[in-house]
Amino acid sequence: MALIVQKYGGTSVGTPERIKNVARRVLETQQAGNQVVAVVSAMSGVTDNLLKLAHEVSSPEHPPTEREIDVLLATGEQQTIALTAMAINALGGKAVSLTGAQAGIQTDGVHTKARIADITPTEVHEMLDAGHIVILAGFQGQTRDGLITTLGRGGSDLTAIAMAGAIKADLCQIFTDVDGVYTCDPRVVPVAQKIDVISYDEMLEMASSGSKVMQSRSVEFAKKFGVRFEVRNSMNNNPGTLVKEEEPGMESVVVRGVSIERNQAKITIDDVPDRPGIASRIFGAINKANIVVDMIVQNVSWEAETDISFTCSAADLPKAEAELRKVLAELGPHASFRSQAGIAKLSIVGIGMRSHSGVAARMFGALSNAGINIQMISTSEIKTAVTVNESEIEQAAKVVHTAFGLDKA
Amino acid sequence: MALIVQKYGGTSVGTPERIKNVARRVLETQQAGNQVVAVVSAMSGVTDNLLKLAHEVSSPEHPPTEREIDVLLATGEQQTIALTAMAINALGGKAVSLTGAQAGIQTDGVHTKARIADITPTEVHEMLDAGHIVILAGFQGQTRDGLITTLGRGGSDLTAIAMAGAIKADLCQIFTDVDGVYTCDPRVVPVAQKIDVISYDEMLEMASSGSKVMQSRSVEFAKKFGVRFEVRNSMNNNPGTLVKEEEPGMESVVVRGVSIERNQAKITIDDVPDRPGIASRIFGAINKANIVVDMIVQNVSWEAETDISFTCSAADLPKAEAELRKVLAELGPHASFRSQAGIAKLSIVGIGMRSHSGVAARMFGALSNAGINIQMISTSEIKTAVTVNESEIEQAAKVVHTAFGLDKA
Repeated sequence: MALIVQKYGGTSVGTPERIKNVARRVLETQQAGNQVVAVVSAMSGVTDNLLKLAHEVSSPEHPPTEREIDVLLATGEQQTIALTAMAINALGGKAVSLTGAQAGIQTDGVHTKARIADITPTEVHEMLDAGHIVILAGFQGQTRDGLITTLGRGGSDLTAIAMAGAIKADLCQIFTDVDGVYTCDPRVVPVAQKIDVISYDEMLEMASSGSKVMQSRSVEFAKKFGVRFEVRNSMNNNPGTLVKEEEPGMESVVVRGVSIERNQAKITIDDVPDRPGIASRIFGAINKANIVVDMIVQNVSWEAETDISFTCSAADLPKAEAELRKVLAELGPHASFRSQAGIAKLSIVGIGMRSHSGVAARMFGALSNAGINIQMISTSEIKTAVTVNESEIEQAAKVVHTAFGLDKA
Repeated sequence: MALIVQKYGGTSVGTPERIKNVARRVLETQQAGNQVVAVVSAMSGVTDNLLKLAHEVSSPEHPPTEREIDVLLATGEQQTIALTAMAINALGGKAVSLTGAQAGIQTDGVHTKARIADITPTEVHEMLDAGHIVILAGFQGQTRDGLITTLGRGGSDLTAIAMAGAIKADLCQIFTDVDGVYTCDPRVVPVAQKIDVISYDEMLEMASSGSKVMQSRSVEFAKKFGVRFEVRNSMNNNPGTLVKEEEPGMESVVVRGVSIERNQAKITIDDVPDRPGIASRIFGAINKANIVVDMIVQNVSWEAETDISFTCSAADLPKAEAELRKVLAELGPHASFRSQAGIAKLSIVGIGMRSHSGVAARMFGALSNAGINIQMISTSEIKTAVTVNESEIEQAAKVVHTAFGLDKA
């Protein structure tokens, strides 16, 4: 008998009919001889409706407090757990619902993006031992003082992975609307293949490079606590992608996947003094404006002045430009900047890169052969990323995918 | 500084605009120098929608379990407390929401109609002392083991009255869509007047006689714990009706109000043996079919056989007849029954009836003068009730209302 945690997102439980489907799948998992905890999200649309109401009773000068937003939003998952438990009971199963608080999920007090501090799954164990399926509310917890909190984006994945760790589940299954993690987005590279096994670090690099199957946060949590999990499709029975700790054999694959991120922009600040404090002043200003900076490149300078480039989302470009204009005077007498939207990022990810040489060269060669110009280059231990013109990103992904032997046979 | 508990029903908080109105009223009450706890219900329509979803995921053979119904329905009030607190904060006030559990409302484990077992209002006091308005979820509580429960019909009134008792509030205001309790339904008797003060027992008899301003259960609770409360209109600032313990001067009014209940039916079982066990057999069968019996009349019999009559709602008549047919053979060789729908009940209520004689005679005289035939008579210490043909109930109410000097000057 295995102990399995499953997670179903808002789309999978978006209608009464879909809740019944989830109920069937959960019940089948138990009937196959397992103990099951199913984590569910709010029905799709519910959270948005609640936020709309919140804004209707508030005002721009007095936006809703985060404490009350959490009290409000937590009702979405609470509704789904009750409905899912009912649906399982209607099929003749035995299910009980538990809110985050009832399941012993204790968080810090940072409303709307709380962190899980501790899990005391007494009630979960008792219910499982009594033969029940436990339907657990994702996305929510309770502070030590009994305040209702929510975990922010990707919170239900986090609930599933954290609970799987706390109850030492044999398997954690994250059900979503794709079959798993792919070597590249199949809409861009039709010959992309589903990845059977991927390490936490590779999954993290893929996520941060645009493959948004899961939030990095949940993967980081899983890595920290050694929770293996599988990303699967809730609409079929295909095997998914297993995300786990690194193992020796995994390095034999040089590149696990190719990830693309569109709608990027780059800014180059020219002729800034090559001395301490300059980068800090630039990115301090950018950060204060809540702009997420992705790649940062500064070349070795042989002169008194140097150039710094960075990328951000194209949507943030006007804000970034405005911030830079404010600090430009502080960046030395010759400083100026240029910007360009319409670029995209291409990354190759694989722990095999650590032990194989010539990986970057092979990537650059493939792009060169296709006549695609590389604008910026940034590397980490298990990732090499470049930016290209957005118009060339699909072709770039295809040729790199082929160059590393990732195409479906 | 007074400590005031207010309660607003589902209609009063039915839209974002109405929630803002409630927020204004609550804030004004605080700004007048009071501490305020506001109990709110689910927005009108929300509970029905949730029940609809519950039935969509269930089946007639496996109806939703009551445990899960409570988890589901409790979200309705939880949404309103968050939205109401937001609306008060948007007006510049300081409000916090508390669920039943957070406010220390502990109940027994009878899901969907739990009874309040204990209240530990630590959090309520702390929040009030910190200068906050407390917005409390009506209708819900938590068992000692942390299960979510709901209190059943009229549950939010009960929450308000019980909390008012627990925190020793100076006043409990039940806001509704009428100005208070009237001497008779003003749609029937246009000269009916709002009652300024009424005793718990009179209010109970009025409620059980069809004046459904509040459920008897909440009034009983208020009586038991000596909680004075006021029934007021949430749409205006008119003074309401104060419901309180009996005081000597109250008996000077003979009849406090006239109450009518339509859509009744009566059944007379003729020629049943006048010996022990007969009434028990009849009403045992009726009770098993979940039929609520109102008046029961059995006359003193001078022979071996007697007649028993009772009333129930006309809707329940077919069920009652079916039950009686089943047990008729056990009720003696000559037993038979007759039934009649289309009747109505008229009651006069007043603690003054205890110390004034001739009250019933005056009622009967008024009806007789109007040519209205009395079918059944039933009396309690502070109530006299009769049944008449439904077609005559409005005229009956008018003449009795006049006879006891209740008409507006």
